[in-house]
Amino acid sequence: MSTKNKIQQSHEVTMDSTKKNEAHIEGASQIGIEVRKEADFSTWYTQVLKRSEMLEYYEEVSGCYIIRPLAYNIWQEIQNFLDASIKEMGVENTYFPMFVSQRQLEREKDHVEGFAPEVAGSSEMENPIAIRPTSETVMYPYFAKWIRTHRDLPLKVNQWCNVVRWEFKKPQPFIRTREFLWQEGHTAHFTQEEADLEVRDILELYRKVYEDLLAVPVIKGVKSEKEKFAGGLYTTTIEGFIPTTGRGIQAATSHCLGQNFSKMFDILIEDPNAPAGSDGKNAKKLYVWQNSWGLTTRSIGVMVMIHGDDKGLVLPPQVAQIQVIVIPCGLTGKTPEEEKKNVEKKVNEVVEELKSAGIRAKSDLRDTHTPGYKFNHWELRGVPLRLEIGPRDLTNKQVLSSRRDTSAKEPIPLVELKTRVSAILKTIQKDMFEKAKKIYDAHRKIVLKWEDFVPSLDDKNLVLVPWCEQEKCEDAIKERSSRSNAEQEPEDDKAPSMGAKSLCIPFEQPKNPPILEGETTCIACDAYAKRYALFGRSY
Amino acid sequence: MSTKNKIQQSHEVTMDSTKKNEAHIEGASQIGIEVRKEADFSTWYTQVLKRSEMLEYYEEVSGCYIIRPLAYNIWQEIQNFLDASIKEMGVENTYFPMFVSQRQLEREKDHVEGFAPEVAGSSEMENPIAIRPTSETVMYPYFAKWIRTHRDLPLKVNQWCNVVRWEFKKPQPFIRTREFLWQEGHTAHFTQEEADLEVRDILELYRKVYEDLLAVPVIKGVKSEKEKFAGGLYTTTIEGFIPTTGRGIQAATSHCLGQNFSKMFDILIEDPNAPAGSDGKNAKKLYVWQNSWGLTTRSIGVMVMIHGDDKGLVLPPQVAQIQVIVIPCGLTGKTPEEEKKNVEKKVNEVVEELKSAGIRAKSDLRDTHTPGYKFNHWELRGVPLRLEIGPRDLTNKQVLSSRRDTSAKEPIPLVELKTRVSAILKTIQKDMFEKAKKIYDAHRKIVLKWEDFVPSLDDKNLVLVPWCEQEKCEDAIKERSSRSNAEQEPEDDKAPSMGAKSLCIPFEQPKNPPILEGETTCIACDAYAKRYALFGRSY
Repeated sequence: MSTKNKIQQSHEVTMDSTKKNEAHIEGASQIGIEVRKEADFSTWYTQVLKRSEMLEYYEEVSGCYIIRPLAYNIWQEIQNFLDASIKEMGVENTYFPMFVSQRQLEREKDHVEGFAPEVAGSSEMENPIAIRPTSETVMYPYFAKWIRTHRDLPLKVNQWCNVVRWEFKKPQPFIRTREFLWQEGHTAHFTQEEADLEVRDILELYRKVYEDLLAVPVIKGVKSEKEKFAGGLYTTTIEGFIPTTGRGIQAATSHCLGQNFSKMFDILIEDPNAPAGSDGKNAKKLYVWQNSWGLTTRSIGVMVMIHGDDKGLVLPPQVAQIQVIVIPCGLTGKTPEEEKKNVEKKVNEVVEELKSAGIRAKSDLRDTHTPGYKFNHWELRGVPLRLEIGPRDLTNKQVLSSRRDTSAKEPIPLVELKTRVSAILKTIQKDMFEKAKKIYDAHRKIVLKWEDFVPSLDDKNLVLVPWCEQEKCEDAIKERSSRSNAEQEPEDDKAPSMGAKSLCIPFEQPKNPPILEGETTCIACDAYAKRYALFGRSY
Repeated sequence: MSTKNKIQQSHEVTMDSTKKNEAHIEGASQIGIEVRKEADFSTWYTQVLKRSEMLEYYEEVSGCYIIRPLAYNIWQEIQNFLDASIKEMGVENTYFPMFVSQRQLEREKDHVEGFAPEVAGSSEMENPIAIRPTSETVMYPYFAKWIRTHRDLPLKVNQWCNVVRWEFKKPQPFIRTREFLWQEGHTAHFTQEEADLEVRDILELYRKVYEDLLAVPVIKGVKSEKEKFAGGLYTTTIEGFIPTTGRGIQAATSHCLGQNFSKMFDILIEDPNAPAGSDGKNAKKLYVWQNSWGLTTRSIGVMVMIHGDDKGLVLPPQVAQIQVIVIPCGLTGKTPEEEKKNVEKKVNEVVEELKSAGIRAKSDLRDTHTPGYKFNHWELRGVPLRLEIGPRDLTNKQVLSSRRDTSAKEPIPLVELKTRVSAILKTIQKDMFEKAKKIYDAHRKIVLKWEDFVPSLDDKNLVLVPWCEQEKCEDAIKERSSRSNAEQEPEDDKAPSMGAKSLCIPFEQPKNPPILEGETTCIACDAYAKRYALFGRSY
């Protein structure tokens, strides 16, 4: 370490990115990442989360994790955007108790079957209670109470809260945890049309969270019958992709529940178009149309998996707590005290100037650490842009900028500081998204013959296939695409041998070749194909 | 109702506040409050919360409640203020799991004794887990891991979350509930001085939440040894007062934990002033100084209890979701259609103009309800200011304003709309606080003789008494001030027969008469008094 750090105190050497990267990998054992993302993804992911101080493993209860400030801040950025957006749509925030009685939970049969294995609770009590895995059955008895006439519609509420799903699959930080944070929106509408529209509006907001904030590309579509929300009518979804493992990942879902829950919970109104007669009888009753939709802290994990690299986290500027780190450089033991003070003064001025432009900037003036150590420290934590200021920069009235995502370096004249930094941050955000999108696009392969299905998965692709949309066919595809069911642990990233699931039927269907009704056959059975479906191994 | 509403369609009549108030009480059975606050406080409180749509009782689990949008919005206003304020102090947000193992919970002996009866959990598992009643024992093992040197200090984290205290006392919405929302801040410091300062800084923020946002006056002080946080060093508190019952209420607490928890959880650093020798031995270890502090949704209940009246909620403008409701008036079946449209157009214009000035305004243009119905509707929900616009107002280029807190009415020329409304809202906020403060001040009585102690409590006062600060004396005061222990339910508001507790030793001590060391005797025993203490029956 010490040799490397001494070298990096000289400005010129830090500009040689090849050399620096090599040094970094060699000397990373103390504070950096010890494994390459491509070589051991699972260990890499854990190391990035822990060493960047995003997350800590909670030793008392397996499958639970501590979300540290660097990660929680991202969640707050997501909250700020989504909360303001749904309020504009007329959704109001609320908080329902987290305890649900067993009795209540069991009122919707399909729903409880979908969630029963994962519900955590105590059966010691007279009326056993559990902790919400989701709040349909907690909320809807009150919807029945509050909704009396069509004037009470639409009813739109949301809550930001924790939920518990006592998973017995192998947990993974952010991606599959027993307790997680989310928002859950629940709305009731007079007509199906209105419900349908809202389902799509919410899905569009979720796309924005992923694509515009987290720079993570997603595909919109509808889930198959098998994969839809238990008890609902249909589920729309945005599906992401983790290139390193070639697996799809469900990013967020927006469900139309139809009238299934309103019938179970008696959420009904008098038809305003067929009111009661003067005798008060014969009023036609209408069940309301309902939606529910949720986005979770999983989103943070997806972002880390996609953008992180061998040096650690790479954060999109939109959600980075610190967007710019400013570090004094080129100071040695021989630097006159006054020159050192001038450099530090300039560092502070630069930070203040950036802050005044709404840019989240911070200085690292610690005199206990070398510039090289600081570079590693902030790279590990994903800070999008680094500015270096040394004595020579003072003379030249400039700073040296270094992008976290590409390692690209360029000098910035101090007179253009705010505009240039602001522009670079925008470029980073855009480039990160486009790079990820290019990779995702290249890894969605149209596959027309079954022989190509598994090889394409094995090449770390998702596949778009003509599909009959039958559940038995979906089961068969999963079975036939699983490399060796018995031997391998399906949750092990190193051996993605699991069978492929249908991820969604994309709204945007491939046009070439088109699916011809009554002609194109299903990828996996003798039936005719209805639409292209996206299949893949997944989280 | 219908007669009343017809009457209220005429602008002039609504200006006669005496008449209107009478009518309201008579006709309130459908949507208003049926009991007087002074007559049956407990029923009044429940009715206000339910009928204003602030809260719903959760029938599945007793002691749990649904926080509806009107109330949750107040919580978000509190969050916005407090979150920004603590971030400025360098506190970072985090999220720890809500599950705590029994083993972990029991590590701090005094602490677990303080909380043990209230912990909810399941003992069916091998390592029994419970739900956090507070997170000291969840967090501090990780503080031990993260804090290695004095450079890791101060460590300041906070989380916004739900906690569970399985109370067996009678629950009361917001005030005492089994699950509630709060923020809990946890910090670690190098010196006691730094910890002491922060305890006071946080208490000052809590005072601002109550006094500046909720218009609720509070008294700052320190808790007695008996009433302090279990396991801590000392507890500072802000104490409120509910005039209708004459009871004190703990509003929020900021604890200095001293080194008690750091010793239990091994949170220690190497003394930077006495580092290890060259042999690596003999480094002096220092335990860190810790604080924890929390403010809960109880604050919403306190605000309702203090400001609500016989017509329902009264919300301080600072936290009101709707600050101004604009209602078209003076329109009858005979009003020409064009005139009606002009009035409604003006209503919308007024709302838009107020919004452009950052005022949260809303119109009520429902043609299914009379103005009188709408007045009641928004009064029940506590909207601070009502603006009425009728055909005559259009001619006069004015609106009629009506304050929720005082029923005071005054016309506002449209040209002065923004400035005047803004000024009135500020005045309402100020007046609500000052009115409540005057009442609180008048109900803190200095009592010097025991004979006056219970009579003063019975007159719905809190008392300031010279006190020896001994726990056995505190127990005796409680016993002696309880009117009849066996017969009455202490949680019943109608019979505040409970004994008095020490609420706090106020920072600001009465000066007249002064307490003379070794001369003034305790109010309740033969020992000398140390300071004035605030005693009272309480929630």
